[in-house]
Amino acid sequence: MSLAREKLAQAQNLLSAGDLWLIFGEESLEPPEPALELLTEASFTWATFLLITREEAQAIVGRYDAPSLPAFWSVEAYDEDFTPILTRALEELAPRRILLDYGTEPLLDALGHGAYLRLRSLLRGFRQGSAERLLFALRSHKSFEEQTRLTRAIREAEADLKALEEALEASWSELEAQAFLHRRLRERGLEPAWGWSGCSLLHFGRAPSHAPPSPTPLRPRSLLHIDYGVRYQGYCSDLQRSFWSGGAIPEHVQRAFQAVRAALDAAASALRPGTPGYEVDRAARQKLLEWGYPEHRFATGHPLGRATHDVGPLLGPLWPRYRDRPRQRVQEGEIYAIELGVLLEEGYIGLEEDLRVGLKGAEWISERQETLRALDL
Amino acid sequence: MSLAREKLAQAQNLLSAGDLWLIFGEESLEPPEPALELLTEASFTWATFLLITREEAQAIVGRYDAPSLPAFWSVEAYDEDFTPILTRALEELAPRRILLDYGTEPLLDALGHGAYLRLRSLLRGFRQGSAERLLFALRSHKSFEEQTRLTRAIREAEADLKALEEALEASWSELEAQAFLHRRLRERGLEPAWGWSGCSLLHFGRAPSHAPPSPTPLRPRSLLHIDYGVRYQGYCSDLQRSFWSGGAIPEHVQRAFQAVRAALDAAASALRPGTPGYEVDRAARQKLLEWGYPEHRFATGHPLGRATHDVGPLLGPLWPRYRDRPRQRVQEGEIYAIELGVLLEEGYIGLEEDLRVGLKGAEWISERQETLRALDL
Repeated sequence: MSLAREKLAQAQNLLSAGDLWLIFGEESLEPPEPALELLTEASFTWATFLLITREEAQAIVGRYDAPSLPAFWSVEAYDEDFTPILTRALEELAPRRILLDYGTEPLLDALGHGAYLRLRSLLRGFRQGSAERLLFALRSHKSFEEQTRLTRAIREAEADLKALEEALEASWSELEAQAFLHRRLRERGLEPAWGWSGCSLLHFGRAPSHAPPSPTPLRPRSLLHIDYGVRYQGYCSDLQRSFWSGGAIPEHVQRAFQAVRAALDAAASALRPGTPGYEVDRAARQKLLEWGYPEHRFATGHPLGRATHDVGPLLGPLWPRYRDRPRQRVQEGEIYAIELGVLLEEGYIGLEEDLRVGLKGAEWISERQETLRALDL
Repeated sequence: MSLAREKLAQAQNLLSAGDLWLIFGEESLEPPEPALELLTEASFTWATFLLITREEAQAIVGRYDAPSLPAFWSVEAYDEDFTPILTRALEELAPRRILLDYGTEPLLDALGHGAYLRLRSLLRGFRQGSAERLLFALRSHKSFEEQTRLTRAIREAEADLKALEEALEASWSELEAQAFLHRRLRERGLEPAWGWSGCSLLHFGRAPSHAPPSPTPLRPRSLLHIDYGVRYQGYCSDLQRSFWSGGAIPEHVQRAFQAVRAALDAAASALRPGTPGYEVDRAARQKLLEWGYPEHRFATGHPLGRATHDVGPLLGPLWPRYRDRPRQRVQEGEIYAIELGVLLEEGYIGLEEDLRVGLKGAEWISERQETLRALDL
């Protein structure tokens, strides 16, 4: 079954009788309407509506966009005006309530405020609500095909990181290491998980940030940190690896590496169905404190999917910036990245691994980094 | 001057005294906040606010995002909570009115309805409005650096189309032709203007649509139609070329080509400052009818920019689907693609060219397709 078909079936199961999910994209690429893409695996140049109930899946599209839709959509095409078609379809489906794509998270909030104001008059007479809960469940619970693609995205990123580790030379800067990864992506027709300029992030002997790599060259006796992911058929991996630039690794550096691993172990053990995200985060945070290191100033983990920071429970602390997301409970079938690190004078030791939540607990999908290796440059 | 600096200066000139433009992106890549990107040329992983008045340019960003900002922004970084910083900044700037990114066009409507509902309580006590007019002017009037990048994007696409014309073999399918274009893009580290799957669009002896290319092989004595653009440093070109697959070109095919060219000429002549978009469209549409061909079922032209279908006046008919956009007046400094075509039994003859609006009229930037060539396959 195609991914779009899988996800449509899942969405229809999640819908209550009488509810209609109305997805509206003016032009699906700029800006994107993520639900439109997920349920069709197509892109649309002109204004497009998807109308979904438990039984029906109707699309209203511009004439030239009609051939893009998979066959399981019932399609009506317009030339000059979509309004009469939309109005008639809504009358025929006669929903008790219409759910729209706005909500408290950016990836659940594709309907612009201006589009909302315009739609409101078209939908007069129907009760309206947010599709947030439905879309949250639909995106966070990964279908079979989604899990397959995510696993592949992780394998592709691992292969690149392994190749970089072998190719790296003492004279390279952060930018040269990024160029190496980008060349490998282009050879395979792949894309980085979060944009060309910021993926990978590389930190040679310095504190991490989200800023793009610099011409900083590699320094002897320092730490190299890499944050990298691959987008494979729309699905993103997210991994971090750390290396020592050469020579014997000082004991305090080895100890910090062990602490980071132990904190990730603690998060992985806590990552099981029913646990709220902040408890998973707390397990990692406390472990780092127990080892005597300062806690990290970001969430320990996030769902992976069509976005690197995907929809779903956040494995983060109860800080105001994260609002209610860390209170959401982990569920079977979700895929997460967990990440944290320790900053030393020699640079940053950061690790990030990707896991799947099974019925009884989490399974590592990524091949974990087991040791801190000194590169042979 | 960097592009972001140019555009910030332009935005500050467009702002009225007392107005504050508040740009809010939760995570700037997924989904994108186009104004955030335009004014910083950076991407942000965490919730980001830009506060712009005629005199001030302040950014509130997550700690790890701070190093990404160009130096002309005054930056405050947060860890756990951005609310107190935002509240204090607004009190100090004490604007008469706060403009938010929602509006009637999708690229002017980045603020989700859900985000609007959340922001509303933070902005209590301030008058609010839409930044639509400001952003419309800012995006449609291209700065010097934007014009440079757009011209380069057009040149890059022309080079690819020329290379395809020379490389094309009789055995190729639409998909093979697309793969050829994609290989060339990857070699140069470029991207297609509107996504890998739908750019290029190729139609070998068939009616055009927005659907991706098919394995349809080239047929003898038929038309090939290609719609293609390149994204160069964020800016998009959009061109169409048509060819005859070999042998003598029938007279009725030559005639249709001349009609398409004549209709584009008519649009180009009408494209001058002060003219509403629908008049430019009408000139092309009438010319096609005069030649005895049916009018095209889409708008004759659209602005180019950071999106292939960019913000600005639409050169389209007054159909309900286009709302008020065709009533907007063309202005100096805008860059447009104009496009139309004629469908024959042998396939589609479509042409698209890119122009800049000068003080007295439009100048062709693209090297126009002058003749319909029979390929030597």
